[in-house]
Amino acid sequence: MFNIALFGAGRIGLVHAVNIVNHKETHLYSVIDPHIASAEMVAQKYQTKIQTTEEAMADPDVHGVLIASATDTHVDLIELAARHNKTIFCEKPVHLNLERVRQCLATVKAFQVPLFIGFNRRYDPQFRRLKNLFDAGSVGKAESLLITSRDPSPPPAEYVQVSGGMFRDMTIHDFDMARFIMGEEPCAIYAQGSNLVDPAIGLAGDIDTAFIVMKFPSGAMATITNSRRSGYGYDQRLELHGENGLLTAGNIKENSVEFWGEQGCLAAKPEHFFLQRYREAYIAEWDHFVDVMAGRAMPETRGIDGEKALYLADKALESLRSGKEIKL
Amino acid sequence: MFNIALFGAGRIGLVHAVNIVNHKETHLYSVIDPHIASAEMVAQKYQTKIQTTEEAMADPDVHGVLIASATDTHVDLIELAARHNKTIFCEKPVHLNLERVRQCLATVKAFQVPLFIGFNRRYDPQFRRLKNLFDAGSVGKAESLLITSRDPSPPPAEYVQVSGGMFRDMTIHDFDMARFIMGEEPCAIYAQGSNLVDPAIGLAGDIDTAFIVMKFPSGAMATITNSRRSGYGYDQRLELHGENGLLTAGNIKENSVEFWGEQGCLAAKPEHFFLQRYREAYIAEWDHFVDVMAGRAMPETRGIDGEKALYLADKALESLRSGKEIKL
Amino acid sequence: MFNIALFGAGRIGLVHAVNIVNHKETHLYSVIDPHIASAEMVAQKYQTKIQTTEEAMADPDVHGVLIASATDTHVDLIELAARHNKTIFCEKPVHLNLERVRQCLATVKAFQVPLFIGFNRRYDPQFRRLKNLFDAGSVGKAESLLITSRDPSPPPAEYVQVSGGMFRDMTIHDFDMARFIMGEEPCAIYAQGSNLVDPAIGLAGDIDTAFIVMKFPSGAMATITNSRRSGYGYDQRLELHGENGLLTAGNIKENSVEFWGEQGCLAAKPEHFFLQRYREAYIAEWDHFVDVMAGRAMPETRGIDGEKALYLADKALESLRSGKEIKL
Amino acid sequence: MFNIALFGAGRIGLVHAVNIVNHKETHLYSVIDPHIASAEMVAQKYQTKIQTTEEAMADPDVHGVLIASATDTHVDLIELAARHNKTIFCEKPVHLNLERVRQCLATVKAFQVPLFIGFNRRYDPQFRRLKNLFDAGSVGKAESLLITSRDPSPPPAEYVQVSGGMFRDMTIHDFDMARFIMGEEPCAIYAQGSNLVDPAIGLAGDIDTAFIVMKFPSGAMATITNSRRSGYGYDQRLELHGENGLLTAGNIKENSVEFWGEQGCLAAKPEHFFLQRYREAYIAEWDHFVDVMAGRAMPETRGIDGEKALYLADKALESLRSGKEIKL
Repeated sequence: MFNIALFGAGRIGLVHAVNIVNHKETHLYSVIDPHIASAEMVAQKYQTKIQTTEEAMADPDVHGVLIASATDTHVDLIELAARHNKTIFCEKPVHLNLERVRQCLATVKAFQVPLFIGFNRRYDPQFRRLKNLFDAGSVGKAESLLITSRDPSPPPAEYVQVSGGMFRDMTIHDFDMARFIMGEEPCAIYAQGSNLVDPAIGLAGDIDTAFIVMKFPSGAMATITNSRRSGYGYDQRLELHGENGLLTAGNIKENSVEFWGEQGCLAAKPEHFFLQRYREAYIAEWDHFVDVMAGRAMPETRGIDGEKALYLADKALESLRSGKEIKL
Repeated sequence: MFNIALFGAGRIGLVHAVNIVNHKETHLYSVIDPHIASAEMVAQKYQTKIQTTEEAMADPDVHGVLIASATDTHVDLIELAARHNKTIFCEKPVHLNLERVRQCLATVKAFQVPLFIGFNRRYDPQFRRLKNLFDAGSVGKAESLLITSRDPSPPPAEYVQVSGGMFRDMTIHDFDMARFIMGEEPCAIYAQGSNLVDPAIGLAGDIDTAFIVMKFPSGAMATITNSRRSGYGYDQRLELHGENGLLTAGNIKENSVEFWGEQGCLAAKPEHFFLQRYREAYIAEWDHFVDVMAGRAMPETRGIDGEKALYLADKALESLRSGKEIKL
Repeated sequence: MFNIALFGAGRIGLVHAVNIVNHKETHLYSVIDPHIASAEMVAQKYQTKIQTTEEAMADPDVHGVLIASATDTHVDLIELAARHNKTIFCEKPVHLNLERVRQCLATVKAFQVPLFIGFNRRYDPQFRRLKNLFDAGSVGKAESLLITSRDPSPPPAEYVQVSGGMFRDMTIHDFDMARFIMGEEPCAIYAQGSNLVDPAIGLAGDIDTAFIVMKFPSGAMATITNSRRSGYGYDQRLELHGENGLLTAGNIKENSVEFWGEQGCLAAKPEHFFLQRYREAYIAEWDHFVDVMAGRAMPETRGIDGEKALYLADKALESLRSGKEIKL
Repeated sequence: MFNIALFGAGRIGLVHAVNIVNHKETHLYSVIDPHIASAEMVAQKYQTKIQTTEEAMADPDVHGVLIASATDTHVDLIELAARHNKTIFCEKPVHLNLERVRQCLATVKAFQVPLFIGFNRRYDPQFRRLKNLFDAGSVGKAESLLITSRDPSPPPAEYVQVSGGMFRDMTIHDFDMARFIMGEEPCAIYAQGSNLVDPAIGLAGDIDTAFIVMKFPSGAMATITNSRRSGYGYDQRLELHGENGLLTAGNIKENSVEFWGEQGCLAAKPEHFFLQRYREAYIAEWDHFVDVMAGRAMPETRGIDGEKALYLADKALESLRSGKEIKL
């Protein structure tokens, strides 16, 4: 049984708390959150204790740390955990500044602790299955990959202001997905974007709608389409065209009930947002992390994956601002 | 080029007129209809002449007759055409009285003319494909067949009164479909029905909603579900369960456009009625009939098929009235 | 926190064990199973104790009993639990003999304990949603209900021999579903069946493929199509036709990945069997039972529902044997 | 009745020949093709005469000309027809050189003859319905448009060499579609492409796989994904995301038959190529052109549409070669 210290008792922290509690090999040992009411709520619900960061890091009974705190605290906590020899699970992104990410990863490397970055979508059963079928050769060589990612509705502008911008906050998942599926690093990137959904996002200096095109050394290409608003739930799809056909991973609908009448056939929309759609993915990535703690596996998504996704986000922004394709 | 005399210039007659005109081997030679305005409309539109029944039958230039007139005229016209050695296409049903059907078919046999009965659904590309896949062994031995047939909206009660009742008028297509798909004759039949759609239909002594179960000597079973009203277009589906899986033939939607919004996904309903859904089937059955006229084929659906479907309709009615399964 | 004694540590007992453990208001207090290895496996996995039937019934700390043992033990356990004033959750069927069921329910009534019968499908989110939409008037008055229920593959003949036959063992779920959706009791029933899937089932005196037709006092009708084998997963669907349209509840596919190639589009088949398809239903029914124990709700599915479903199974068998529609 | 002279008796000429013959207001008066065997085949099949270009243009009985000849003959024939006051239907593209197109359109303007450019996809019932729903406000303001266009298999390299390149030959339809749907002219364009399908296409100096991103003055964006090969039929789809939801126009499948078995559900692939998918579109555009000849309508797709689509193709090529977004 591994004891886990959970840093951050917000929305995503709660998702992980449930999975830690439900896993037969992990115990939610403690929770750490500067917002004391949140920490207390988790502590009471799961009969666990509250620690300070220093206590948790110094506690020899803590085997693993799960960092689900505010983005700007990630690197410090990773470095601290590395120095204390903990196995580390950190939510994306590592940090919004690429240099700081590299510095942090150097520390992790120096202390030789396993670091897993929570790119949850890699563990979605749909996307994983598509990847496995592709790797098994079902469509031959990859030619084009289309990634669709649209949130149901935009976040508040205050969040947008500290988010690092759409590419580092939202598209970063899609950059990771492109790398994961294709199995090679892109050699050119182009981004186009607009502020169409909420004027406050534009005032905050960000965009809310984007198209990104990447080219890979093999000649294959990928495109990402993003929006902060869909109006019909969480739109999360992949299309991978290869020599011998197409693999698609579609949305999961809220239910299988249909109404047929004069107006046509009304079916359910996609599941509302990531808590629903990626529920199984969060469980699967925790399973994987337990394997890492138990020495049964190496982290599949590592610090370098966080770094490379952020690099692509930075370059996409450079392309957006310059109106030029950027060579990588 | 075969000259065709068209008996009946009503709704179904017009469907055939177009197909006769468009077929490169057939010429719409004449039209015969006691309702003179209808005959004139066809004659003018397609630049063809109006004949009386006697003229058309006696005319040596008429090679084939297409009987799309009122149901109660079918047998007389078939017999007359047989005596004049015409190749005969007759819309279903041959007649509403089984004895009269048998008498008529005896005449056809005596004069050795080809008689094709227009069970159009056998020529629907969807159902034909399902049948071909089944015959090719794709699901192994048949176990259960489910036939769904629902009209978009009920006919007027006046029509119902002269229709011979739901089983002889509407279900007759499904009885033929069951025989066509299964390739064996049922040995037991049970029918249950209700008057739910239009009280006027009940007052006319008929039902408008029915379930029928048939058993076949092989042990396989079939069910037919019928309604005079769907509320969402023409519902025409097959499900054939076999040893190794399931074959389905679904509805054809009016279009492929979908709207995704807060309420879900709104897609098109099935094509409205038989004129749309079976447009290709009518063309295909005419193609087949031209092959019959040209001596390139024997009629696939013959008088005996009309007789057997009517026999099943009669027995279904007997079951409905007696509340008993009828052995055949 | 309610302490639960689990009777039966077989396949379905394990499903419930997980849900008892995961529910925040219930504790898996003890497990009872004459097959001691099964009991020990559960006891060890969930750190719970093993009791005898007598110990569990007499134990004042046991608040609720979950009866998931062999079918022929259900009534005795229900009666014993009633005498000890436990709240009772019993898997379907109550018993295979209708008289014995009635006797048992009289005992339950005498001791005034809540009895919940585990008709899990009523708690399937798809079917529940269809029922709610129907009750809200979305299709108006019901006209026809089609229930499809096909298992992926047949059980061993040894199981069939003690199962009470297909209608009491398998179709009983569908009889309950028909009553649940329609909200009225059928007034006539007809059954047709065959032994097509496995000859050993026929040798055991049973059928494996069936069509059932029921009529209701309102004139509405329902049909059930059953097979012990689908060849493509667990086929669980509803179609409810009403005055104003159609409501369908379709299968849940194993995943949303499709392969498009020369042969067409290959998509996933339905989830394999009840453990997958009704996973959420088992959780939801346990939620409901906890509400019953807490006095927040009365059992939605009660002894009388078990009795009525068995009555329909008996009458269906009478129809199958006599070849007659049975008035109810 | 309008007499039509058909220039070009190749594949696309034959499509139009059928529609001319079948339309009640048009007569296939003559056929003109330097490849005499092709002309004779059409003349014999449709009982029409063969003319030279000069004869057809000078013939006062010719009311309309349909130009379906080799691309490099289009402008000369348009100018000649304009001088002879014919109503002109010309297949896309007008010409591969933008200057020559403008010169030709000036001539058309001088002689004030109606010129219709055959962008057939605008008349596809699916795309037209999506456009109508968008114009009716169903999704509010447009935000992103995704156009998918993939041919089933690549053309021979010899064709590619004279085609003007992928953008002018294939993507030109998509440029027109983007302008048609959005109702505004793009202000920036970026193209990325690869030679992945057939090395011979690369040797001919062309690409066979492309992603294009366009931005519009409103801030809305569009992307086009093209491939010369799909491996699963003709892939022709639209996705239009707006303020209030999404409109999609999907592929039309070859049939509605599905096979369900151990491997999953196998359904039909999209219709094979443009002759099948756009059959109705070709009929509808001919209907429209007849309205133009009859003075009942002005051409909906005009010379300027041909010019603007070619301009976008040229600019896309400039972007591809320079690796830069091009401002328009």
